[in-house]
Amino acid sequence: MDKPLISRRLMDSDGSLAETPSGTPKEQAVSSPEIIFVAVFREHYSSLCALSDQLAGKILVDVSNPTENEHLPHRESNDEFLASLFPACTVVEAFNVISAWTRQAGPRDGNQQVPICSDQPEAKLSVSEMVHAMGFKPVDMGPLASTREVEAMPLRLLPGWKVPTLLALGLFVCFYGYNFIRDVLHPYVQENKNKFYKLPVSVVNTTLPCVAYMLLSLVYLPGVLAAALQLQRGTKYRRFPDWLDHWLQHRKQIGLLSFFCAVLHALYSFCLPLRRSHRYDLVNLAIKQMPPPACAPAPACPSLSTPGFANKGYLWDEEEVWRMEIYLSLGVLALGTLSLLAVTSLPSIANSLNWREFSFVQSTLGFVALVLSTLHTLTYGWTRAFEESRYKFYLPPTFTLTLLVPCVVILAKGLFLLPCFSRRLAKIRRGWEKDGAVRFTVSTEHVLPEKTSHV
Amino acid sequence: MDKPLISRRLMDSDGSLAETPSGTPKEQAVSSPEIIFVAVFREHYSSLCALSDQLAGKILVDVSNPTENEHLPHRESNDEFLASLFPACTVVEAFNVISAWTRQAGPRDGNQQVPICSDQPEAKLSVSEMVHAMGFKPVDMGPLASTREVEAMPLRLLPGWKVPTLLALGLFVCFYGYNFIRDVLHPYVQENKNKFYKLPVSVVNTTLPCVAYMLLSLVYLPGVLAAALQLQRGTKYRRFPDWLDHWLQHRKQIGLLSFFCAVLHALYSFCLPLRRSHRYDLVNLAIKQMPPPACAPAPACPSLSTPGFANKGYLWDEEEVWRMEIYLSLGVLALGTLSLLAVTSLPSIANSLNWREFSFVQSTLGFVALVLSTLHTLTYGWTRAFEESRYKFYLPPTFTLTLLVPCVVILAKGLFLLPCFSRRLAKIRRGWEKDGAVRFTVSTEHVLPEKTSHV
Amino acid sequence: MDKPLISRRLMDSDGSLAETPSGTPKEQAVSSPEIIFVAVFREHYSSLCALSDQLAGKILVDVSNPTENEHLPHRESNDEFLASLFPACTVVEAFNVISAWTRQAGPRDGNQQVPICSDQPEAKLSVSEMVHAMGFKPVDMGPLASTREVEAMPLRLLPGWKVPTLLALGLFVCFYGYNFIRDVLHPYVQENKNKFYKLPVSVVNTTLPCVAYMLLSLVYLPGVLAAALQLQRGTKYRRFPDWLDHWLQHRKQIGLLSFFCAVLHALYSFCLPLRRSHRYDLVNLAIKQMPPPACAPAPACPSLSTPGFANKGYLWDEEEVWRMEIYLSLGVLALGTLSLLAVTSLPSIANSLNWREFSFVQSTLGFVALVLSTLHTLTYGWTRAFEESRYKFYLPPTFTLTLLVPCVVILAKGLFLLPCFSRRLAKIRRGWEKDGAVRFTVSTEHVLPEKTSHV
Repeated sequence: MDKPLISRRLMDSDGSLAETPSGTPKEQAVSSPEIIFVAVFREHYSSLCALSDQLAGKILVDVSNPTENEHLPHRESNDEFLASLFPACTVVEAFNVISAWTRQAGPRDGNQQVPICSDQPEAKLSVSEMVHAMGFKPVDMGPLASTREVEAMPLRLLPGWKVPTLLALGLFVCFYGYNFIRDVLHPYVQENKNKFYKLPVSVVNTTLPCVAYMLLSLVYLPGVLAAALQLQRGTKYRRFPDWLDHWLQHRKQIGLLSFFCAVLHALYSFCLPLRRSHRYDLVNLAIKQMPPPACAPAPACPSLSTPGFANKGYLWDEEEVWRMEIYLSLGVLALGTLSLLAVTSLPSIANSLNWREFSFVQSTLGFVALVLSTLHTLTYGWTRAFEESRYKFYLPPTFTLTLLVPCVVILAKGLFLLPCFSRRLAKIRRGWEKDGAVRFTVSTEHVLPEKTSHV
Repeated sequence: MDKPLISRRLMDSDGSLAETPSGTPKEQAVSSPEIIFVAVFREHYSSLCALSDQLAGKILVDVSNPTENEHLPHRESNDEFLASLFPACTVVEAFNVISAWTRQAGPRDGNQQVPICSDQPEAKLSVSEMVHAMGFKPVDMGPLASTREVEAMPLRLLPGWKVPTLLALGLFVCFYGYNFIRDVLHPYVQENKNKFYKLPVSVVNTTLPCVAYMLLSLVYLPGVLAAALQLQRGTKYRRFPDWLDHWLQHRKQIGLLSFFCAVLHALYSFCLPLRRSHRYDLVNLAIKQMPPPACAPAPACPSLSTPGFANKGYLWDEEEVWRMEIYLSLGVLALGTLSLLAVTSLPSIANSLNWREFSFVQSTLGFVALVLSTLHTLTYGWTRAFEESRYKFYLPPTFTLTLLVPCVVILAKGLFLLPCFSRRLAKIRRGWEKDGAVRFTVSTEHVLPEKTSHV
Repeated sequence: MDKPLISRRLMDSDGSLAETPSGTPKEQAVSSPEIIFVAVFREHYSSLCALSDQLAGKILVDVSNPTENEHLPHRESNDEFLASLFPACTVVEAFNVISAWTRQAGPRDGNQQVPICSDQPEAKLSVSEMVHAMGFKPVDMGPLASTREVEAMPLRLLPGWKVPTLLALGLFVCFYGYNFIRDVLHPYVQENKNKFYKLPVSVVNTTLPCVAYMLLSLVYLPGVLAAALQLQRGTKYRRFPDWLDHWLQHRKQIGLLSFFCAVLHALYSFCLPLRRSHRYDLVNLAIKQMPPPACAPAPACPSLSTPGFANKGYLWDEEEVWRMEIYLSLGVLALGTLSLLAVTSLPSIANSLNWREFSFVQSTLGFVALVLSTLHTLTYGWTRAFEESRYKFYLPPTFTLTLLVPCVVILAKGLFLLPCFSRRLAKIRRGWEKDGAVRFTVSTEHVLPEKTSHV
């Protein structure tokens, strides 16, 4: 009895092969099996037309994918094209999202699902059994017309990261320009000082923390807006506006970009003492700090090593020392807390936590990180917002701009902790609705999760 | 034929819905399905009492969880309460450990298991089939009385981390106090020097490595104690004392906390040259090091740039230089090795290693990390344990306190490598028992693993 | 009816145990079950010989593994030995690759597969059902003779890492020796300067980046060679030479080692300002830079604080400043990009990406990292390759040696982007073959993936 060659290898244990059929190698290859995997590119489908007779009545499984250039919305999919070339065969699409490496190494957690499309239920069933035997999970995606969407699946390129990355880049460009004007252009214009050497490291290092801090606050702002909206509407059953919904869904990506910028900021900060400019600044400061030798007649010539003389040269600004000690310590603590958030974002760790643990790390520890970052920024700023010399071209110090959104978030969260608000919010989140709250019509269609496929 | 609405969507492909039933929206919603998911909070169960007639004979699946405040040991669970409200229905608990996100995104590795409790086997079977169809793994947890334990499952908050975190915090507080007394209080009391600026960064940076080092030694100490116990008892079949058993189970958390403290120590160390206090110290050192200009009559006035003069000012302590070079290098190597241990602790990587590989990294490389950390501490200490000036208020240098436990572990491991001990230990671990060793009674109950659930 | 004791616990819910059998505890334990798990070491198998009668006709599941010393190619496996001791029993090998921890905690993604070997298909089926019930995936590995290979599986010790690690160590030793000769030996021999203190940190820190950079280029070189080979042969259907095949398979390990060395290089670099030698160098530089006090008669005695005097001591080399700023910035960016590659190599993240996303990160971002590293090295070198003083013992500066392979890779990739080459390569990779290309004979044996097991 003819069984598919692949299923014979996987399911039988008798080890016997069918009798060697006659004909060309291609004809021999396709004559015995019931299921043929067509692993050729679209432009070579026609090379199989010579085998139309042998292929009649068999199941053709197409595993190909169009490239980004070829995948056009109104163009028929590879499977539809194959079906038009071989009308006597049944075309099934399967395995097109599974990479060659995964097919060889075996299924892993994220790559276990194999979408299957076909017009014939029996063909779908046969291929599903084969998928099961190989250790994957078949997912019925409907008729062959669905293949256009299925072919789009492996063409996605980190779709959830596009907007957050553009946001981060935009913030970087804005803050870099602002810091350039304040730290490089202003000294050049006003005092004719050449500070352009600051561009590669210094200005970058004052821009990155702004980006990281802003992004971190943008992770927690939508939650605050959502709570405010629920309080104002008096119900949790009204859908959020689309922009808020998308924002809530991209918090993880925004948070990870914030962490990445924070790490780069740390690396750049640690590079500061390695630079020649730093070395020269120190040496020049030491030279400037040297008390002048008052060259009087010999007996009265003071020595540098006498206490009085040494004290004149002794350099110490207690306030500056404390400022740096505190804000460096707060910065390290903020980075340490952010790293805990980043680590628990890893899929394998996130999956091993239950909801309460995940919420504790991401919400509670995350808010702690936001507060530490705010204290780090405030201590870095110290009194600089109130010193006139810090206003270049009447532009305020950069850190003042970054404090706006985070302080709003922290104040709002503090406000929502007040009993009057927290009790009401808890009631609303447990299902209570105020009278006259506009209801969201529940239809049986929406009882089920939006996505029927399991990906 | 009436089938559950959800199963119709998932299992049928005919797409036809039942005729629209009559009555209020709620009555319409509950009249046709056999299985109803009750997704309301406990306090709103009574709102369904009006539907008692329509719900009679159906299966109610409760997905709710009490909060930490509501979950009390002697209080009946949500499911038992629901069952008491609707005695004509069969209550099944399912999906209460699965977060809403997982239900929407689909099952991943750690979140695949769905505990199911019910008094009726047929109801359990129906719900299990539904769970299977959604891609999850149903796990039978027994009758409805088990729901109290099941409801406790998502309320756990990192239970394995409580004791290690308290231990780390306790060690930090102790060492911070000790270093404060030595580095800040002693100069203030004895020499009236104000070193309080050291509190945020310096004292923290001398405390964190002590905590990290002690925790690392506490990861390997229980293994040594267990080996000693097996050697002394002459058998491996006697259970360890409870405290040792718990200690052995928490080694991973203690190790990860040790790594976290070591990383923070590295970050604080790299912050040291960024501080103003460091800059001022360098400048003051340069000024102090300046040889005095002996202002004699002009012809005899020496110039600073003459070799003889410059050599007077040249600062170099060969021993100090070597000490720092060596202990910094050892510190980086120890941190690098610890990072390998931390990375292989990630679930996805740990699962891809076999036992021999995992043991090589965690035991062998871990011991290498302990030895490198010990050398780092010894080289940092150098001869300071023998210098009287290092004893503040007769308190020894902090590093001497930390060396105790690690040296015990290293010496013990070295001892167990001697043939007389290693051969005996290998025999015991392969099943040999010395005569008169107290046997642990093997009963058939204990043949099976303690946990029947697969979580 | 006698059922296996384990299956009774897992599959039945009636809770009843069989009547307590008579005899010694061992005889009682083995009399009722059909499947006995033999969890003893090989040398203790004979202790079960007394039970031969009770064991007759039952299934013995052997879970043991030989150690590395015991596992010899020509020695019979533990299962074959067990089968020879109990000819009346059926021996099945199962669970030998699953650690005790996994058996207790339950199956996770990488550890779900249980290889099963036996000569009897019915025995294999019974044990497979048990494996399924426990949540694992049974994999048929053939007859008992296959147990020698199966027993080798848990004895592997990171086989894919041996060659890359030896390669990295070899590169490290070579470059360390080269840098030692240039930076320590040459000053000692030529100028009698003692620079041996540089050995622990400085020389290591000039060696590690060379190793990291070379390894990174060796990740992308085989891809370039493979493309060149395909262009030259005019087909993609000829197998690559074995050495190239192995090289392509180990790119991930080589890349991760490169990243590890890059991180260590960053840590050592950040340690540079912490060292005493650095502090002394700065102080001595400040002292040397001090302008001499021209001790002339009092009225003409200049003061250090006068501008003219300060400018004499002012230290600034604009070119050196720019050089360091640029190459430090490029270094941080290169490390940041490499960290993205390392993070996406984690199994859980790699599995959540589709092929296009994975290829974007590993190929495109990886090439960006290679270009950034090359710019970092070139900027570090600046004009040093053209300064005669940099050639110690006629040996060129180390960075020039490292630039060879990466520049070949970058130029080749640039070349392959030219339309004449890129179009031809795309055609070949879509299946086109030039006339006369030597065909690789396709046999039906090779249609299927090489590994039938799913690991």
